[in-house]
Amino acid sequence: MSQQRSHRVAVVGGGVVGLSVAWRAASSGSRVRLVDPAVGSGASWVAGGMLAPIAEAWPGEEELLTLGADSLARWPAFAEDLAADSGRPSGLRRDGTLVVGVDSADRAELTRLEEHLSSVGRTVTRHPGRELRRLEPALGPAVRAGLEVPGDLAVDNRVTLAALRDACRARGVEFVAESARAVSPGTVELNEGSLTCDVAVIACGAHSGSLHPKLDGRLRPVKGEILRLRHRGSALPPPRRTIRGPVHGRQVYLVPRDDGIVVGATQYEVGFDTDVTAGGVRDLLADAEQLVPGLSEYAVDEVTAGLRPGTDDNLPIVETLEPGVVATTGHHRNGYLLAPLTAETAVELLQDGGRT
Amino acid sequence: MSQQRSHRVAVVGGGVVGLSVAWRAASSGSRVRLVDPAVGSGASWVAGGMLAPIAEAWPGEEELLTLGADSLARWPAFAEDLAADSGRPSGLRRDGTLVVGVDSADRAELTRLEEHLSSVGRTVTRHPGRELRRLEPALGPAVRAGLEVPGDLAVDNRVTLAALRDACRARGVEFVAESARAVSPGTVELNEGSLTCDVAVIACGAHSGSLHPKLDGRLRPVKGEILRLRHRGSALPPPRRTIRGPVHGRQVYLVPRDDGIVVGATQYEVGFDTDVTAGGVRDLLADAEQLVPGLSEYAVDEVTAGLRPGTDDNLPIVETLEPGVVATTGHHRNGYLLAPLTAETAVELLQDGGRT
Repeated sequence: MSQQRSHRVAVVGGGVVGLSVAWRAASSGSRVRLVDPAVGSGASWVAGGMLAPIAEAWPGEEELLTLGADSLARWPAFAEDLAADSGRPSGLRRDGTLVVGVDSADRAELTRLEEHLSSVGRTVTRHPGRELRRLEPALGPAVRAGLEVPGDLAVDNRVTLAALRDACRARGVEFVAESARAVSPGTVELNEGSLTCDVAVIACGAHSGSLHPKLDGRLRPVKGEILRLRHRGSALPPPRRTIRGPVHGRQVYLVPRDDGIVVGATQYEVGFDTDVTAGGVRDLLADAEQLVPGLSEYAVDEVTAGLRPGTDDNLPIVETLEPGVVATTGHHRNGYLLAPLTAETAVELLQDGGRT
Repeated sequence: MSQQRSHRVAVVGGGVVGLSVAWRAASSGSRVRLVDPAVGSGASWVAGGMLAPIAEAWPGEEELLTLGADSLARWPAFAEDLAADSGRPSGLRRDGTLVVGVDSADRAELTRLEEHLSSVGRTVTRHPGRELRRLEPALGPAVRAGLEVPGDLAVDNRVTLAALRDACRARGVEFVAESARAVSPGTVELNEGSLTCDVAVIACGAHSGSLHPKLDGRLRPVKGEILRLRHRGSALPPPRRTIRGPVHGRQVYLVPRDDGIVVGATQYEVGFDTDVTAGGVRDLLADAEQLVPGLSEYAVDEVTAGLRPGTDDNLPIVETLEPGVVATTGHHRNGYLLAPLTAETAVELLQDGGRT
């Protein structure tokens, strides 16, 4: 065991998943190098940061709900370790989520979600609009009903990324600012040269598919557009809780930050394209303002898009691809949520030397 | 006269007006230094670039219409000189403008504009929606009527700025990358140290008021928000002409670029604040899509705001403030339009040594 603990691990990809795996592997005694030309960029930088397995639960995706709930339960301890190792705030927010609706079709969708959660043994609390506005005074008059989901959390993703980077440094992770072209047992091929290791971990999100033949065709990029709005002057402060809607049937979420809010939800399957479209921005703003009218006075600080790594079954790929090569990818909308569980599983696979 | 031609001129401010004055002054024989920590930034960088005295004409502003028309008439020669001196395209576009309207109140406003222009001896052509869509197939079905204003032109403002900068260099203008604190006869006070000259020109747009006591209180910042949209893939190409509306009573303009379009028109008087508000973006997108529905598929490349230098009478301040100090500021929405005329007037004031 002590021999295995000195494994040389190469983690390819410095998003939330790669950073978490690198940090946890280094903490458990491995010598870790993290290969990424721009650590903490990509989809992890763009993300909203919801940790929302319950509010996102969907019939037929019970396995994802179980995984998500397992990982969510690990978040408080993960956050505490992260703050301790990095000397920084972890970014975790514990204010819960409201899933709200506007029209009668939206309210019917809330009922379906409530019934589904009840059928899998989870309870949420339904409130009328006036009670929701008592909980969150920023909610507008169009909000007619909603579910209080106290267990779902959120992170300020950029605070979390900064903490993960520093926690990795504190645990001796070496950062290699290079792009990887391919991964095989014992070797990570870089754009120039290569890097040897005992086990390689592929954590490149939507870009993982080209790195190993066993991932080819299993990942597709799912574009998500995000607006970052900043509170200004006399505008109402942002809500404390995450607010999600169907708004006239369209999904939108508002994730609070200390100084504003992140608005997202669009999903486009258009390949490796990170353009933000005028229509996407128009819809996000319209839906966000339906839920929180005061946002119209907020400043638009950022309009960006990221590529979520989608899989056929919406489940992540956390497995040994062949001896010496582990994959931790395909987390789709759930990279932040699943990072603690994925990192734990990856460390187990690494301790087994990446043997199948 | 040959003695005066060797004047040492310091132009404070490197927007379109300051660059134009510096270039024309250097071309007429002055030794010119241009003081700006970031040449070509600010409102000139953000601007839409319409040269539209006719489409923007308004009863009571006949003097501005005359100035604008005089300057517009100088633009073709100015552009030709600019291209020759810089070895770059000038950015001038000659495709004209359509002023269109959506509802009956908008159409009534078009009628008022048509009558006003007729009363000052200018004619425009009124078209029904179907004829407008024949001229510009990108126009949507909501457009019901419009005026063709062939004389109004436009520039790609960033192409023009690059040309002005290189034309200045070609004519020997020396760039001083410093901020100015105050201007008095013979001296430009910098943040550190000072610079001596025979005549100083204040061309700092909305920031000019603090530089000389005679400008104090005469300029106010008028914020304008701008979206830069880029044509993508299968979306309809942008119109060739500038398209302006009232759209349900709200002003919006779409100024074509080679690869997309610039959308603007918001005006806020909120001090030195360049935040772009969510409500401003929402309105610009909604109005632009009413006129050109295909814009929803364009990419949002930029969301920015600039501060136009507003004056009480909406006329620019181009005058000698005291011997040795000339002002060329207060151009409000018309910096690009008026730059040729202002530069010409400034060179005359400079040749008089900035004497009142």
